[in-house]
Amino acid sequence: MNERFFLIDCGEGTQIQLRKNKLSPARINHIFISHLHGDHVFGLFGLMSSLGLMGRKAVLNLYGPAALRDMVEHHLEFFGPLPYALDFHTCKAGTPIYEDSRNEVIPIRLKHRTETYGYLFREKARMLNIDKKAIDRYNLGLEDIKHVKQGKDHQTDSGEIISNSDLTLPPYKQRSYAFLSDTGYDPGIPELIREVDLLYHEATFLEADSDLARQTLHSTASQAAMVAKEARAGKLLIGHFSTRYKSENDFISEAGQIFENVTAVNDGDRFTLDLTRVRKE
Amino acid sequence: MNERFFLIDCGEGTQIQLRKNKLSPARINHIFISHLHGDHVFGLFGLMSSLGLMGRKAVLNLYGPAALRDMVEHHLEFFGPLPYALDFHTCKAGTPIYEDSRNEVIPIRLKHRTETYGYLFREKARMLNIDKKAIDRYNLGLEDIKHVKQGKDHQTDSGEIISNSDLTLPPYKQRSYAFLSDTGYDPGIPELIREVDLLYHEATFLEADSDLARQTLHSTASQAAMVAKEARAGKLLIGHFSTRYKSENDFISEAGQIFENVTAVNDGDRFTLDLTRVRKE
Repeated sequence: MNERFFLIDCGEGTQIQLRKNKLSPARINHIFISHLHGDHVFGLFGLMSSLGLMGRKAVLNLYGPAALRDMVEHHLEFFGPLPYALDFHTCKAGTPIYEDSRNEVIPIRLKHRTETYGYLFREKARMLNIDKKAIDRYNLGLEDIKHVKQGKDHQTDSGEIISNSDLTLPPYKQRSYAFLSDTGYDPGIPELIREVDLLYHEATFLEADSDLARQTLHSTASQAAMVAKEARAGKLLIGHFSTRYKSENDFISEAGQIFENVTAVNDGDRFTLDLTRVRKE
Repeated sequence: MNERFFLIDCGEGTQIQLRKNKLSPARINHIFISHLHGDHVFGLFGLMSSLGLMGRKAVLNLYGPAALRDMVEHHLEFFGPLPYALDFHTCKAGTPIYEDSRNEVIPIRLKHRTETYGYLFREKARMLNIDKKAIDRYNLGLEDIKHVKQGKDHQTDSGEIISNSDLTLPPYKQRSYAFLSDTGYDPGIPELIREVDLLYHEATFLEADSDLARQTLHSTASQAAMVAKEARAGKLLIGHFSTRYKSENDFISEAGQIFENVTAVNDGDRFTLDLTRVRKE
C-alpha cells in the first residue's frame, strides 16, 4: 500500500513463496497475524531467523492477539535473540493498530476457535488535488492553494466566491482491502467493512456442509458471498478450501449466485487496486 | 532402510518437499534431529500438526539432543496437544538410539555451536544364506541348517568336516549411511564411521575461507573430503553450501582432489544402496 509492504499471516513456507515471487523479505516491516493456529504462523520463526541472517537491523513490527508476544518470546528463549528489535502491537477490535500519513489498519474481531482478527487496510482521505488551470485563471497564491486543497472555496479580489469543486479535480477514492480468515459466518461484519474495494473472505466449506462450518467456526462459499454482498464490496476473493473438495469451481458457482464478482485465489496471485477518481455529481 | 522410513532433520517446508516427492508423511515413524538451529527444525511443528490432521494415532518417535523435548513440549503448550503420542529419545554419543531386527542408528557427537549429533544408520549383521545345493549334497536336516546359518562347520555321518564357507553363499555386506551436519572439522570422526557406504558431510565453505569455517564451526569441502578419505567411505555427498558462493562446481573440484567419488546434493535427490555380497577370499 503506497510503497509500504504488509505481510498478513505467515504459514510454513512463507519465505520460500516470497523468494519464488521475487519479493524481498527485507522490505517487510509489518507482519499482521490473524490467530495462533499453525497454518497461519509456523512460517514466522523461519522468516524472523532469515531476516537476522540477512543482516536486518530495523525494527520488525508484529501485530496480532496478545498471545503472539508470549509465543514469540518463548520461541526466542530456545533459539536465541534476534539481531534486530521486535515491536509487538496487540489487537483491539475497531481501534486502528497501524497508522502512517497515508494508510491505516483496523483489526476486526472474527468468530473462530481461538482469539482471531481480520484486518481492514484503508487509505486515509487524501488532500484535494488542485486543478492547475484554476491557479492561472484565478491567479492563486500559495496561501490560496493551501486553503483550496483543504476544501475551502476561494474569494477573488473582486469579491466573487468560486466554489471549491470548480477549483479542484474530483478526489481519488480511498482504496481498501479486508482480509478475513478464519471465521464462522458473522452478519455483524459487513458494517465494519462497508464498501471495501477488495475482500478476502475464507470459504472452507460448501453450503451442503454448513453444519461442519458451524461446528468448526469456518464459513461456506455462500456465507462469504453474503458478507461481500451486504458490505457492497467491489470484489470478493475466496480461498482456504477444505481438501475434501476436488474442485474450486463448485465454490465459485455457489458464491457467484449471491455475489457475482468473485475469484478463487491461489499461491502467487496478485491483485492491484487502481487509483480512481470519485465521480463528480 | 529395509522398509522403514527415517527422517533426518526437519527444516521449514519439509512437509511440502515430502508431498512434492510423493513420499507419504504418514509412513514416517522416526524423526532424527541433529540440533536445535532453525534450518534443521522449523518444519517439525507443521509436520507434527499435519500428521494430527491426517488422523495419525501411532506414536511418533523423536530423537535428538535433550533440549528437543523441552522445545516441543513448550510449543505444544501454545498450540494444543496432538491426537497421537510422542516418544522422545535423547542422544548419547556412541550408544545406539534406535534398534530393530535389521537396523540400528548410532548418534555421533559433532563440533558445533550447540549440542549437535550426526547419525550413523547401519544394517545389523545378517544370518548367513545357505547354499541350496549344499543341502542336497550333504543331506542337511533342520538342525544342521540352523547351525550352518549361524556360521558353524558341518560334520557328515562319515565324520568328514565340511567348512562353513563351502556350505554358504558369501554374506551380504552390511549397508550404512552417515549424516553429519553441521560440524567443524573433527579428525576423530572417521574412526566412528569406518567404511561407511554413503557419507553426507556438510561443506559450508571453501578452503580459502577456512578461518570462517573454524569460527562458525562448519567445514570446508576439503575437510569433508578428508573425513571421507580417512573413513574409507564408499561415496561422499556434500551440501549446506554458503550462499556467498555462486557455483557448486568449486566445492566438487576442491573435494574431488582429496576424495574422488563426491557429489553435491540438491532437494529431491535420491541415492540407493544396493545389496552386494562380500567377495569370497
